[in-house]
Amino acid sequence: MKIAILTIGDELCIGQIINTNAAWMAQACTEIGGIVLRHITIKDGIDLLLNELHSLKKEYDCILMSGGLGPTHDDKTKETLLAYFNDALILHEPTLDSLKTRARLRGLPLNQRNMDQALVPSTCTVLENPRGTAPGMLFHVENVIYVSLPGVPSEMKGIMQDHVIPFLRKHIEQEQGKIPYYHTILTKGIPESALADLIGEPDLFLQKDESLAFLPSYQGVRLRLGILSIDPIQAQQRLMEIQAFLKNVIGEYVYGFGKASLLSVTTDLLIQKQCTISVVESCTGGLLGAEFTKQSGSSAYFIGGLQTYSNDLKMQLAHVAPESLEHFGAVSKEVAEEMAIGGRKVLKTTYCLSITGIAGPDGGTQVKPVGTVWIGLASEHEVVSKRFNFGNDRAINRERSVMQAIAMLHDALVS
Amino acid sequence: MKIAILTIGDELCIGQIINTNAAWMAQACTEIGGIVLRHITIKDGIDLLLNELHSLKKEYDCILMSGGLGPTHDDKTKETLLAYFNDALILHEPTLDSLKTRARLRGLPLNQRNMDQALVPSTCTVLENPRGTAPGMLFHVENVIYVSLPGVPSEMKGIMQDHVIPFLRKHIEQEQGKIPYYHTILTKGIPESALADLIGEPDLFLQKDESLAFLPSYQGVRLRLGILSIDPIQAQQRLMEIQAFLKNVIGEYVYGFGKASLLSVTTDLLIQKQCTISVVESCTGGLLGAEFTKQSGSSAYFIGGLQTYSNDLKMQLAHVAPESLEHFGAVSKEVAEEMAIGGRKVLKTTYCLSITGIAGPDGGTQVKPVGTVWIGLASEHEVVSKRFNFGNDRAINRERSVMQAIAMLHDALVS
Repeated sequence: MKIAILTIGDELCIGQIINTNAAWMAQACTEIGGIVLRHITIKDGIDLLLNELHSLKKEYDCILMSGGLGPTHDDKTKETLLAYFNDALILHEPTLDSLKTRARLRGLPLNQRNMDQALVPSTCTVLENPRGTAPGMLFHVENVIYVSLPGVPSEMKGIMQDHVIPFLRKHIEQEQGKIPYYHTILTKGIPESALADLIGEPDLFLQKDESLAFLPSYQGVRLRLGILSIDPIQAQQRLMEIQAFLKNVIGEYVYGFGKASLLSVTTDLLIQKQCTISVVESCTGGLLGAEFTKQSGSSAYFIGGLQTYSNDLKMQLAHVAPESLEHFGAVSKEVAEEMAIGGRKVLKTTYCLSITGIAGPDGGTQVKPVGTVWIGLASEHEVVSKRFNFGNDRAINRERSVMQAIAMLHDALVS
Repeated sequence: MKIAILTIGDELCIGQIINTNAAWMAQACTEIGGIVLRHITIKDGIDLLLNELHSLKKEYDCILMSGGLGPTHDDKTKETLLAYFNDALILHEPTLDSLKTRARLRGLPLNQRNMDQALVPSTCTVLENPRGTAPGMLFHVENVIYVSLPGVPSEMKGIMQDHVIPFLRKHIEQEQGKIPYYHTILTKGIPESALADLIGEPDLFLQKDESLAFLPSYQGVRLRLGILSIDPIQAQQRLMEIQAFLKNVIGEYVYGFGKASLLSVTTDLLIQKQCTISVVESCTGGLLGAEFTKQSGSSAYFIGGLQTYSNDLKMQLAHVAPESLEHFGAVSKEVAEEMAIGGRKVLKTTYCLSITGIAGPDGGTQVKPVGTVWIGLASEHEVVSKRFNFGNDRAINRERSVMQAIAMLHDALVS
């Protein structure tokens, strides 16, 4: 199935927002064996979209659109689809009901603009959108599948997961027999090139229709095994075979599999071992605590933390010694360790992680350049600390500090 | 000048990485009056790129490419450009010198793959790339400008800033009369459709070459005014005229203009008024503190906070009364207010924001469904609190809680 992804919106075209939808849709389609050959972004406008549809339908089996379904005058997608399919609007009662319920629950009036969202082209399949007001639409005309989705990422993703992906998956299975199956091996503590050297030439252990991709990120390198197969059970067996082979070679760097993350693996270990964690954060301002609590059920391991942004609060709340701040500075091994030790006592947890650093882009010195971060980890019998430097981008610095803190906790839990 | 942005790479097409280059290039071109009408992303491949160039040159004055210039076998852009322009490679001595210097400084050998980067099509203008190994290339053939840049974002941006933008700006100035000017009005506390109702039909107050776009987000709806003009001063005056008209109608919802955000406007007010802020967070786990500290210079207003995830810590650190937790529950007006009052005393700040809620997706009850959030704001003389419900998506819930907390602080600072 050849797929084109068509994202619509002036704000995308002029670069006011980054197009995250196209990548998300492309990845979701690729995972079920769709072949995404092209992304196109155009401005809002009936003629622009009409031209694009007329030209794309000649080459593609599926055109996935997002954007232009809002209630205001610059949203033209529905109007364009009516013209393109020579269709007329009808009222979709379930959507109107859901709009009414939504409005009632939020105590908001339902104006005409919103009610118009329940009008849909008569020939489309309506794709419910419980997260927003504009439903998705699916047309299947002359062997081409057209899907139109809202531009709001959470709404687009919800409709893709609930309706579009299952629909496309079934089609792909019927048409091409073989569909892809994937399995991911998660590694940490080793760069991509060193991992590739260890693993060696993939052709030596992979057969036809099998693939191995390296996906590097801040969280470590993920290895994605792929296999094209007509048989899910056979595919699964073969994936496990390859995984076993790879674990023999790179096992010490493997921390998990599949959709797990370093966070989920680490917090699962905390729960298993009945341990708790707390945080004392300076340059990250709360980001580490936010990370630990982004998963549902986090109260099983996360107790709380101290955002000791000022030096005064480092002393007052985490009992860091004034002398340590004075002699070594707030960004130092000594202060990081005292923050972790003090936080652990105050917050009464098995482990306490601390982060103190110069997030940037200003504030660096010769000895402690921007990006210098100390991370401490206190447990009952010891405190460990590490120095990092992630460069001078403030946001990247903070994100990587959080990931490294979790990696240090993971190290402690598996050692 | 009609511009198409063409990004090249398998990893973009299958959605493995998000296309930040396209947005960056589009924004840079739009700011100098280029009209970006289309973004296209295609896989690596000579025929794909040849087809695209043949079709784009019919409609566009400028084709900006990024990607496919690396040293490995899947990088095909240079080879394609040679075929497209029927050109031949020549050695570009300054590039070779710079490659040699680079290699020497880093103590790395210069292999053939890298030296080949100094071979360029004979008819192109070479755009130096001090940040990487592949130089950019510019062709000006039959009134179409073709620019090919590396896909590495920092290298692409450097060459754009140093060479491409100045070149395009000169062309646009010479060739084009009208160029676009933009101005953004930032609103909060009103949904897109209600705002559109208040403003009414844009055609009634906009003239030819003027536009109004609604850009909704969690932070509120941004209104982008656009105007095509030959005269920057006149354009600016007219934008201010339209802004004045709109402020009359929707002024109470306007919190700022241009590139500001609710966060930056709010923290600017804190600094102006010499006020400080602290936070006491439960369901957001630190996300509000992380938001306040994501800007450089945040120590001017943000002192710190307490991540009181457990009830014990709400009592121990923020001095919430045990009776309040028992009678009203952790997610209640009373507890939110006590958290803010207690936090303000402990952390010694002008204002203290508290957030306590049921982030979801589990943990709701009939009376307090998932998504129920109480936000408190304590100042010297009073404490205010508000109840929200943002639905059952944990991540959205937490993000919107953070935005609403900042909105409450903004309200307090402007009232």
